[in-house]
Amino acid sequence: MTGATDSAAADGSTPEAIMGATYRALCEHGYADLTMQDIADESDKSKASLHYHFDTKEELLLAFLDHLYDAFTDDVGTTDGDDAVDRLVTFVDRVLCPAERTDEARAGSRPDATSDGETDGDEPNDGGETDEFEEFQTALLEIKAQGPYVEAYREQLERVDAFVRDRVRSIVADGIEEGTIRSDVDPDDTAAFVATLVDGVNTRRVALGETDGSVRNTFLAYVRENLVAPGADVAVDLGGDPGNDADRDTDGDATEATDDDDVTGSADGDDGRAAAGGDD
Amino acid sequence: MTGATDSAAADGSTPEAIMGATYRALCEHGYADLTMQDIADESDKSKASLHYHFDTKEELLLAFLDHLYDAFTDDVGTTDGDDAVDRLVTFVDRVLCPAERTDEARAGSRPDATSDGETDGDEPNDGGETDEFEEFQTALLEIKAQGPYVEAYREQLERVDAFVRDRVRSIVADGIEEGTIRSDVDPDDTAAFVATLVDGVNTRRVALGETDGSVRNTFLAYVRENLVAPGADVAVDLGGDPGNDADRDTDGDATEATDDDDVTGSADGDDGRAAAGGDD
Repeated sequence: MTGATDSAAADGSTPEAIMGATYRALCEHGYADLTMQDIADESDKSKASLHYHFDTKEELLLAFLDHLYDAFTDDVGTTDGDDAVDRLVTFVDRVLCPAERTDEARAGSRPDATSDGETDGDEPNDGGETDEFEEFQTALLEIKAQGPYVEAYREQLERVDAFVRDRVRSIVADGIEEGTIRSDVDPDDTAAFVATLVDGVNTRRVALGETDGSVRNTFLAYVRENLVAPGADVAVDLGGDPGNDADRDTDGDATEATDDDDVTGSADGDDGRAAAGGDD
Repeated sequence: MTGATDSAAADGSTPEAIMGATYRALCEHGYADLTMQDIADESDKSKASLHYHFDTKEELLLAFLDHLYDAFTDDVGTTDGDDAVDRLVTFVDRVLCPAERTDEARAGSRPDATSDGETDGDEPNDGGETDEFEEFQTALLEIKAQGPYVEAYREQLERVDAFVRDRVRSIVADGIEEGTIRSDVDPDDTAAFVATLVDGVNTRRVALGETDGSVRNTFLAYVRENLVAPGADVAVDLGGDPGNDADRDTDGDATEATDDDDVTGSADGDDGRAAAGGDD
């Protein structure tokens, strides 16, 4: 956008290094109080050399949001899964917490790993990461609150949102085609709904400090009962606890989905995992 | 909280007037840039007389959030409806946009009503009110982003959130008892889910300028298919368009809810109303 992300600076500082410094400065100072000096302090560059790339804090932040878009879309751009329902739940989990979900997925796929990406941070490696993630979400919410004032911020936020909605829409469309998602589901409406839930979780994390993943169970119930096609052989309980999949297979059967306790039972029985994996 | 909301000041300014001035100053200046002088400028009081009540901007804002809680809970504290499902949808509509929903509901039920005693009260029409509502939501999102820094703000935000969740929980519990909501629905999970959606809609309104009510259809589908009890004679399409209720009766029947197009058809056919009434 500014050209800064694809060229090295004459003074030897790389735009990548500036982006890292911006991230750290945002975590430490938040958006409103952030100065170019704060960002310089987080790098080994002078404020003058920052100004070599960016005239204003706003311009630097725009480049940062651009950089963030690339990192985010790289992180969650492809979603593996047995079927569209699996991919949808995995995608939402990762969007809600890209870094930690990645950690968790890695821990889950390596049997020797004992850590699971929890928030409490008693492990040596991820307590700091979690704090940093919360701090960054806080700065991001401040930037969202600038939406009505800084049109260019809003455009970057819309870009991320469009990416999330496109991915959901495309996964849902695939699911309809493969027969795992009901043919009467509207991919656009579903995408808007999921994007709104994600924004809600992220806002609550900052505003209320809510990181208990309490929404995940209900999201899974929504997927199970609103999206899964009758008769589809899919498990709506994924991402980090594959060993339990056999118990969770709902079949999406019409009568099962509405008149027995198993469906909710399986959602409720899932508390431990949801609390661990939802959005904290 | 500060005692300011229930006593008149020695200089004749009423706390109520200060709250009104705070509301207007927040709409105009946002939270981050707000000064005591800005608030004084919106009232006919001096900055010194504001300080008679409140030592700091933060203290004043806390009293304002307290005042807001009272106004909000007065506005949406009771929800009429034929049954719990009706009340739930009506409650969510009003929480998403208390002022405008009230306008719309009153306009719908009393063709002669043109004014509604809303907070701002200076305009007979609602174009200005809508702008003001957006501005206020922006300031509120800034305050939410202060959650990690100002514990007392977070406590006030939690109070509002607890109220919303309590109401949803209680309506859902009533619905289970009266048989309109499935007995396997968890009132707590539902409350958390609804509160998260509400936060998402409010964040998107500010960050992205999204006011198209696009989530409402999918919320109604969620209510219809996840919450409504099999065989319950309720209409999941309410609030402002009662004339159409007969068309919307889903019966909550198991096969109807999962294998025909009528359910989605009725949700989709509702675009005009949802766009008008959802959250813009």
